[in-house]
Amino acid sequence: MEKSLKVHVGPAAPPELEAAVVAGGGELAPAEEAAALVWFGAEPSRFPELDHPDLEWVQLPSAGIESWLASGVLREGVRFTSAAGTYAQTVAEHALGLMLAGARQLPAMARAESWQRPDRMRSLTGSTVGIIGAGGIGRALIEMLRPFGVTVLAVNRSGKPVDGAERTWPSEDADGMRQVLTESDFVVVAAPATTRTSKLIDADVLSAMKSDAWLVNIARGSLVDTEALVRALEEEEIGGAALDVTDPEPLPDGHPLFSHPRALISPHTANPQSLLLPALARRVQENVRRHIAGEPLLAPIDPTAGY
Amino acid sequence: MEKSLKVHVGPAAPPELEAAVVAGGGELAPAEEAAALVWFGAEPSRFPELDHPDLEWVQLPSAGIESWLASGVLREGVRFTSAAGTYAQTVAEHALGLMLAGARQLPAMARAESWQRPDRMRSLTGSTVGIIGAGGIGRALIEMLRPFGVTVLAVNRSGKPVDGAERTWPSEDADGMRQVLTESDFVVVAAPATTRTSKLIDADVLSAMKSDAWLVNIARGSLVDTEALVRALEEEEIGGAALDVTDPEPLPDGHPLFSHPRALISPHTANPQSLLLPALARRVQENVRRHIAGEPLLAPIDPTAGY
Repeated sequence: MEKSLKVHVGPAAPPELEAAVVAGGGELAPAEEAAALVWFGAEPSRFPELDHPDLEWVQLPSAGIESWLASGVLREGVRFTSAAGTYAQTVAEHALGLMLAGARQLPAMARAESWQRPDRMRSLTGSTVGIIGAGGIGRALIEMLRPFGVTVLAVNRSGKPVDGAERTWPSEDADGMRQVLTESDFVVVAAPATTRTSKLIDADVLSAMKSDAWLVNIARGSLVDTEALVRALEEEEIGGAALDVTDPEPLPDGHPLFSHPRALISPHTANPQSLLLPALARRVQENVRRHIAGEPLLAPIDPTAGY
Repeated sequence: MEKSLKVHVGPAAPPELEAAVVAGGGELAPAEEAAALVWFGAEPSRFPELDHPDLEWVQLPSAGIESWLASGVLREGVRFTSAAGTYAQTVAEHALGLMLAGARQLPAMARAESWQRPDRMRSLTGSTVGIIGAGGIGRALIEMLRPFGVTVLAVNRSGKPVDGAERTWPSEDADGMRQVLTESDFVVVAAPATTRTSKLIDADVLSAMKSDAWLVNIARGSLVDTEALVRALEEEEIGGAALDVTDPEPLPDGHPLFSHPRALISPHTANPQSLLLPALARRVQENVRRHIAGEPLLAPIDPTAGY
């Protein structure tokens, strides 16, 4: 007989999450009968309302768990999992869309009112992709890039090799960073915003990039020097830019980046509200399946360790 | 000692193809010394100029080989390979770009002159993709869709199951075709243009599609009823349309499909001239590698069978 798992979704119970429990092989149950709880729709402080001695596992709805740690309700004897990594897929998908839009000149096509074949058509297939800040989003993007036979050059904090990257450099290695920026056909910025990464992509970097390379920023606007980028586009120092984040953000109405033929502004929509619930539902389904199969759950939290 | 392979590129010798020979492990050589020939840049009738008794293998530059068959120069004792399938990757990449542009509302963003978050943001991840006419392009597209956990529904002539598709129906099965069209979040048209496929996507089909589904046509314009499509967009019967091919083609200046907020016209650029040579170079590299490794070559031609 197959193992079953009684799961409660609450305090709020969106139908998408209840469907995900069932799709993962679980059985919906009242809180007091459930061995597992998918928490949704209320502050952590209310967790004790649904807690009970036989509760084994709690799936939290967010990637960051600071509020859960602060509330002090995480307890031993229950396994907690976060939604860490859930949204990487959504953001990476957007990044790939921006890269392909750039390669295939879709912004120019979208603006055309007549049948004009743009020049500068490129292919992602066989190209070199540099990922600055290769964390969860970068890893999801690398999976999406596999069918295109690209060479991935990665930069991350530690320099620890990223699976699927030809080579990984630590962010403090200026020569390595330079090599990634100058050899890539697509430079994808996915690094955190810190004082060290402020205006990482400046006039100097832009002039060193390939003249047909596209810059894609799905991290934070502060990483790119906007004025230098506008100049680089005007002077054709780079192929184009697709930005989900900008500095300032929002960009003022009529800013030249809105209309430049080789620029695309996506107004901070890589991970829109409307896609949060579907992404969480996928994680719930997968973790329910893993729990039933006895496989390790994704994104486990160690409350005693604090993460 | 490693096996070597002397290869001649001719009569024309683009540097990209010579580099591909070397990258595949081959050695460039004059025609009379070469065991392999990568044919480029002249009519088949000139083949005998470079033919010689020790020639083992000839890589042709095109997918269709009608002109080679007609010229009667293919001879026994030499293995010929075509470029069949070479361009499927390029076209499938374009199709994926159009799908992501639709899902993420990139056409509306490209046209915006201010910071406006579009609604109707979708995700390719976890969606259902219908491929009408799942041949070489469809297979390449399915590979690209794997990281997105999509459900692929396929239609092809024979109904022979397509690898990676949840289910495959023969094109003559009207009920199966209907199911694909009504259940898909993305309908990708990749079927050949025949009298039977003319206006396959008509008013009836469009009204049966999901109200948020995107139609992507990278096959031939005749497969979609353009007037019915314009009406379906106006009446919000479908989510949007991205068309690389149109009827008529080219679309007349100022046609409503150029400016509809949820339409994107890509002027027959899925496989642009500028990407033909890079795609052929990838095939040359791979077949040179395979020849040296003693593996079966891609896209072999049987001159006696005529294909």
